Amino acid sequence: MTSPHETAALDHVDAQIDASLDRLIALMRIPSISTDPAHKDDCLRAARSQADELADLGFAARVAPTQGHPMVVAHHAGPGGDAPHLLFYGHYDVQPADPIELWRHGPFDPVIETRDDGSKQVVGRGACDDKGQFRTFIEAFRAILESGGTLPCRVTVLLEGEEESGSESLEPFLRDNMQELKADVAMICDTGAWDADTPGITTGLRGTAAGQVTIRAADRDLHSGLYGGPARNPNEVLARILGSMKDEDGRVTLDGFYDGVAPIDSELRAAWDKLGFDGDAFLREVELSVPAGEKGHDVLEQSWARPTAEINGMWGGYISEGFKTVIPSEAHAKVSFRLVGDQDPDKVWDSFKRHVRAHLPADCEASFKPRGGSRAISLATDSAPLRAARAALDAEWGKSALLASGGSIPVVNSIKAILGMDTVMVGFALNDDNIHSPNEKYDLKAFYKGIRSWVRILNALGQVDTERTEAVAAE
Amino acid sequence: MTSPHETAALDHVDAQIDASLDRLIALMRIPSISTDPAHKDDCLRAARSQADELADLGFAARVAPTQGHPMVVAHHAGPGGDAPHLLFYGHYDVQPADPIELWRHGPFDPVIETRDDGSKQVVGRGACDDKGQFRTFIEAFRAILESGGTLPCRVTVLLEGEEESGSESLEPFLRDNMQELKADVAMICDTGAWDADTPGITTGLRGTAAGQVTIRAADRDLHSGLYGGPARNPNEVLARILGSMKDEDGRVTLDGFYDGVAPIDSELRAAWDKLGFDGDAFLREVELSVPAGEKGHDVLEQSWARPTAEINGMWGGYISEGFKTVIPSEAHAKVSFRLVGDQDPDKVWDSFKRHVRAHLPADCEASFKPRGGSRAISLATDSAPLRAARAALDAEWGKSALLASGGSIPVVNSIKAILGMDTVMVGFALNDDNIHSPNEKYDLKAFYKGIRSWVRILNALGQVDTERTEAVAAE
Repeated sequence: MTSPHETAALDHVDAQIDASLDRLIALMRIPSISTDPAHKDDCLRAARSQADELADLGFAARVAPTQGHPMVVAHHAGPGGDAPHLLFYGHYDVQPADPIELWRHGPFDPVIETRDDGSKQVVGRGACDDKGQFRTFIEAFRAILESGGTLPCRVTVLLEGEEESGSESLEPFLRDNMQELKADVAMICDTGAWDADTPGITTGLRGTAAGQVTIRAADRDLHSGLYGGPARNPNEVLARILGSMKDEDGRVTLDGFYDGVAPIDSELRAAWDKLGFDGDAFLREVELSVPAGEKGHDVLEQSWARPTAEINGMWGGYISEGFKTVIPSEAHAKVSFRLVGDQDPDKVWDSFKRHVRAHLPADCEASFKPRGGSRAISLATDSAPLRAARAALDAEWGKSALLASGGSIPVVNSIKAILGMDTVMVGFALNDDNIHSPNEKYDLKAFYKGIRSWVRILNALGQVDTERTEAVAAE
Repeated sequence: MTSPHETAALDHVDAQIDASLDRLIALMRIPSISTDPAHKDDCLRAARSQADELADLGFAARVAPTQGHPMVVAHHAGPGGDAPHLLFYGHYDVQPADPIELWRHGPFDPVIETRDDGSKQVVGRGACDDKGQFRTFIEAFRAILESGGTLPCRVTVLLEGEEESGSESLEPFLRDNMQELKADVAMICDTGAWDADTPGITTGLRGTAAGQVTIRAADRDLHSGLYGGPARNPNEVLARILGSMKDEDGRVTLDGFYDGVAPIDSELRAAWDKLGFDGDAFLREVELSVPAGEKGHDVLEQSWARPTAEINGMWGGYISEGFKTVIPSEAHAKVSFRLVGDQDPDKVWDSFKRHVRAHLPADCEASFKPRGGSRAISLATDSAPLRAARAALDAEWGKSALLASGGSIPVVNSIKAILGMDTVMVGFALNDDNIHSPNEKYDLKAFYKGIRSWVRILNALGQVDTERTEAVAAE
């Protein structure tokens, strides 16, 4: 049932969509790459721009310093009283842009591209992850407030600046500001739609364990003409070790890796089968055809239900143009694991370390830089906020939102562990959005309908009984 | 028997050693990195400086253009007539300086360092390979000429500028200038002494085969949160393939790799045993202790008699600071093989390609950039020029020069194949000279006694009967 206020707000979205897009583009022009210290000021600039805007919209907003990049924290009382209280989370930082030469345009000089099918895309780093996504709820706040209404819920906004670089400040910040940040339920816009026409709500997330390994042998780089043969080559050692992390069937060989991984529940599998997920099409979109994961599991299970081990980066020796007959003194890799079920990130990382050390030949030493981790998470699929969000999405899209599993969003674990809150994950990303890759983009229809979706979700949640919400959140 | 002219020249070396060192340092200041197009002008500058100096010394000298970096060609008639005609080869280009952060000083800002044992070293890129080394024969020419003598032999000098980047112009240049460059025997100063007190002559060289391999899977970089599991990861494919190039005993697994590799001759092995080579000390110098090559062969055999496979560079995915959960679309490696006996470089490279392709999983493709190669070479150990050079080295060092096997110096093959000449390889490099590594250096005693050695060698060769020389060279 659409209220007059909701209709006015939706009309406002329609009328102001160009201005909304301009604001996204202005934010995308700030290269807020959190992993690169050279962009520290850009991160601060991005944070300030969002705090200033929220203040202009009537929020009590501030840029809160941390040991790393700052947080944006903002509050709006909405209708006050005991209206449901929502914590909206997003992140203003982005991934590095390299390999830069594969971008069609400058990664921080966004352009609008029209595809052959007529769809329009805004292209640039952060277009989707997460600037385009979190801007959908901020634009929804704006539409409601500027069309003469007030927010139907109490709203707290938390924008992080270190999501793409390990979120080191996040948990301390949540702990230090627990009372201020606590709400009934958290809302995150950092996940995908089912497809361009079908909304999705993510209720399962894989966990992570990750880090860097360095293998060292001789005390200096050696000339392979002189030392080739008797001198140990760390590149070779690293290749052998990484190459032994999976067996011929794609199963991870780390000791105890599958502890806590349950067989796939047949009811769940039956539910998934109804989703109409096309594994072939999913792979075909990126020019692949054969699922590369564990034998005996299809694309959907490999993506949602089974843990993974990936080499995200690997380097050693001479890697520039030309050739250098060197035996390097060290070689490196960045590896990450996606976890499911009850897998323990610390145990997985320890098992990786043991695996490396067990395969280390004489004269080699290994060192490790772990990079935090998170357990997999599985959210209630029938909570009141989730049902309200589904109903709102149904109304906007004319199609039921599908419940899906997604990648790792560690903040969901942190919010649960520290603030004791459940999260509803609604996002509008598409598989071809190239997040973390060159030519990242966001579909303008996703952006537009995303804003409208949040207007509806806010209204729907405003009607949810708070105590019921809290009860569900505390389940 | 030392002639008065020889004595005068040796005295001149002693008196002018500081000026000789200054001239080396001036050349080392030119960053003539041939593999990097940004240093094209520096290579030209280095070539011109040498041609100008040789012209000042009375050579007919020129800088000869090629498709790549130019050659320096210079001639001196010496005593004229039928005096033995020597072709001196060196290269003025150097390796890249990275990893730059490991240098104690700027790689192109040479410094003199005094070690705890009192020895002095000139430190900088090219100190040894090959600027310091080839300058020993040029300074020897200077000492003879400036002390009032003429060169005891006819001398042609050929300085290359692409030795560290594949020598693409070398063979065409030798072919195009065959008549001008043909001499009785070639002399190369690009190899090692036995140790700081013992000269060495290299009579065996390993061959090479080398190139780059690229593995491609998806058509773009993927987010491992979304695609991890079903998407093929080229880093993993590359690691598995490179990790499978050797078996547990360090034996190369490429099909047919050992074709043409003869068992080690027991007589040769007995001769080597007399050399007093200390494999443990050789490894200990770079903080290694266990020979990493083929089981059943000691350090000396692994270095001199057995072929090798090395990963000189390997890279894929995100390799900068921080972390990026990417599955890259491609991964790369630079590999090289040192060849012995009758191994065929083309067959070895083809076998590597077949090995990669045979291990390629679905959805992957491999591409290759070969990088030339050369067969192993074994030179006569009793030719007249070699015996003359040994006698001269004996006189200078008070110790017999040892005959050793060394790395690959493809120009030796080219000179044999195109000009039909044998080469005598006399060099003064030490194992700890860090060639191709940070803090490359050249021992000042090696430099000084190297110059004196060439004065003696030139005089000794001037007394060799030319026809006898030619006859031996043609053997």
